[in-house]
Amino acid sequence: MRAAIFNGPRSITVSERPDAAIAEPTDAVVRVVLACVCGSDLWYYRGDSPFEPGPIGHEFVGVVEEVGSEVQQIAKGDFVIAPFAFSDGTCPHCRHGITSACANGGFFPMNGDGGQGEAVRVPLADGTLVAVPGSGHSGRMLASLLTLSDVFATGHHAAKCADVRAGDTVAVVGDGAVGLCGVLAAKRIGADRIIALSRNPVRQELAREFGATDIVEERGEEATEAVMDLTNGVGADATLECVGTGQAMETAFAVARPGSTVGYVGVPHGVELPLGGMFLDNKGLRGGSAPVRAYIPELLPDVLEGRLDPGRVFDLTTDLDGVGEAYAAMDERRAIKSLLHVSSV
Amino acid sequence: MRAAIFNGPRSITVSERPDAAIAEPTDAVVRVVLACVCGSDLWYYRGDSPFEPGPIGHEFVGVVEEVGSEVQQIAKGDFVIAPFAFSDGTCPHCRHGITSACANGGFFPMNGDGGQGEAVRVPLADGTLVAVPGSGHSGRMLASLLTLSDVFATGHHAAKCADVRAGDTVAVVGDGAVGLCGVLAAKRIGADRIIALSRNPVRQELAREFGATDIVEERGEEATEAVMDLTNGVGADATLECVGTGQAMETAFAVARPGSTVGYVGVPHGVELPLGGMFLDNKGLRGGSAPVRAYIPELLPDVLEGRLDPGRVFDLTTDLDGVGEAYAAMDERRAIKSLLHVSSV
Repeated sequence: MRAAIFNGPRSITVSERPDAAIAEPTDAVVRVVLACVCGSDLWYYRGDSPFEPGPIGHEFVGVVEEVGSEVQQIAKGDFVIAPFAFSDGTCPHCRHGITSACANGGFFPMNGDGGQGEAVRVPLADGTLVAVPGSGHSGRMLASLLTLSDVFATGHHAAKCADVRAGDTVAVVGDGAVGLCGVLAAKRIGADRIIALSRNPVRQELAREFGATDIVEERGEEATEAVMDLTNGVGADATLECVGTGQAMETAFAVARPGSTVGYVGVPHGVELPLGGMFLDNKGLRGGSAPVRAYIPELLPDVLEGRLDPGRVFDLTTDLDGVGEAYAAMDERRAIKSLLHVSSV
Repeated sequence: MRAAIFNGPRSITVSERPDAAIAEPTDAVVRVVLACVCGSDLWYYRGDSPFEPGPIGHEFVGVVEEVGSEVQQIAKGDFVIAPFAFSDGTCPHCRHGITSACANGGFFPMNGDGGQGEAVRVPLADGTLVAVPGSGHSGRMLASLLTLSDVFATGHHAAKCADVRAGDTVAVVGDGAVGLCGVLAAKRIGADRIIALSRNPVRQELAREFGATDIVEERGEEATEAVMDLTNGVGADATLECVGTGQAMETAFAVARPGSTVGYVGVPHGVELPLGGMFLDNKGLRGGSAPVRAYIPELLPDVLEGRLDPGRVFDLTTDLDGVGEAYAAMDERRAIKSLLHVSSV
């Protein structure tokens, strides 16, 4: 089979690999239909994080080709969503809803297979994969289903961690695909006012379509001032930090009102937390790797029934051979998020 | 009037001061009946935090002697609890329940008056003071009412920030008066199992009486191992950090299960947060200066009706002249918490 391979910073190619195959009786092999590039992929792409050369990608949907002898909930032919972390669904952490910390789980890519390839061996298939009901879904629907493997579920996680409630004023720091999904998630929960920090007109437009009521173009202290002005000096009831940089976190805490919580989902890079001010003003911090698997049952109906269209974050589509451009376009901020059309359903 | 004065590290004396007096029409003057020494007072007492020489103390109950012309809810003769922060009760932060961040508020000591003195000018009396119904309360009841000015409400804040729920396994790091009150607060909310970290037999006994089901005597990594053993490797559903040191915070995060929250109320000193691990395991942090005023209406009935007896944290009682010994005994860990009997009701 063919799969995208990371050779080193800014070098992604497509190579022949051994076919994905059942190794454990709890495995499934999934033929990838759609995959995509994550903002977190850019950290190693840019050389900002260490990463082993080899297969890449952790967001994919596809068709089950084969299941191991112990797999019971998933069957050959199912169209499935694969969360970026695999999990057994039965360990104490999974039962508490933190599937991303499963005692027996792990993260894609693993065992030689990444999501940006023709097929993937998925461990713990019963606990991990979610079979999508129905058939004949449109390409647009498939793209929205793909966002449940990571990006929209991650935006939802930011909103849940920030404790967004109906009627709230919410600030979203970061206009990448996760931040935009955070806007959509806050809107879905019932936020009254959503302030999106973005200086990019294309992203501002999508933010507004996803539910943003206000756009702040400034950065740093000027952004803080703008949000404080918009909130009569009070700050946001809930703040989503969807970048992972020190400046984004600083802005998030600066615009959070006392007693509120910053929900963060960007992998932290060079972040120093303002602990003194957090203590004085009771500003909390919650977040991390989204327990995507635990959220899919709640989010799937809104996508399947057309109430939400998170797949709109994809503004570049290519095939597997175009994976290099898929990364480059996101790196250069020419694309919000790149979709890889790997095979047909 | 006479009041305790901080002269410098380990030097507390009692001096004559100008009488507390109404300065604003929203003030009240409270004659102090009981006051006490806070763990946070020890930071400057030990020279670990800068502090202006002058009046000290921020926990007191007493009798209203005089009110300003605009005070409506509080009257001369009321027996009142004074939260350690004063607040108007009407600003956006107060309305969100974060009275400790009141836009017009502040902290005692202020304006020349501290709680460890014969009387205190209390700003924003209507928003700040809570009149206690009834009369003829026993000395033991008065001591428990005093804990609502800070220490028990702060333990409750740790439990609320850690999101303690009925049936939870809770770990409490710190066996000072706040940690012990955290045990009591977790029990009050309905925690099933409460693991108290303490190596002091007297404090262990009080922890058990307050509801601790398990005591861990170890510190550092050995404490973590002990808690993980007690929880079958899962960790605590909610963790209360009631010290403020780097080691206490490290232990708190180490014993918190993935997806749970550390509630912290010890003023942080030399704390470095393990952000990478917090992200990976979705361990949150919430807490800060307790919004005591907002909690009193919920906690007062349990104290007044005898269901809770948080005043048991006081194990040394002296008069105002004994304030030096009150500090020294806590500094040397001879006392859990020192009560100052300043005047009679």
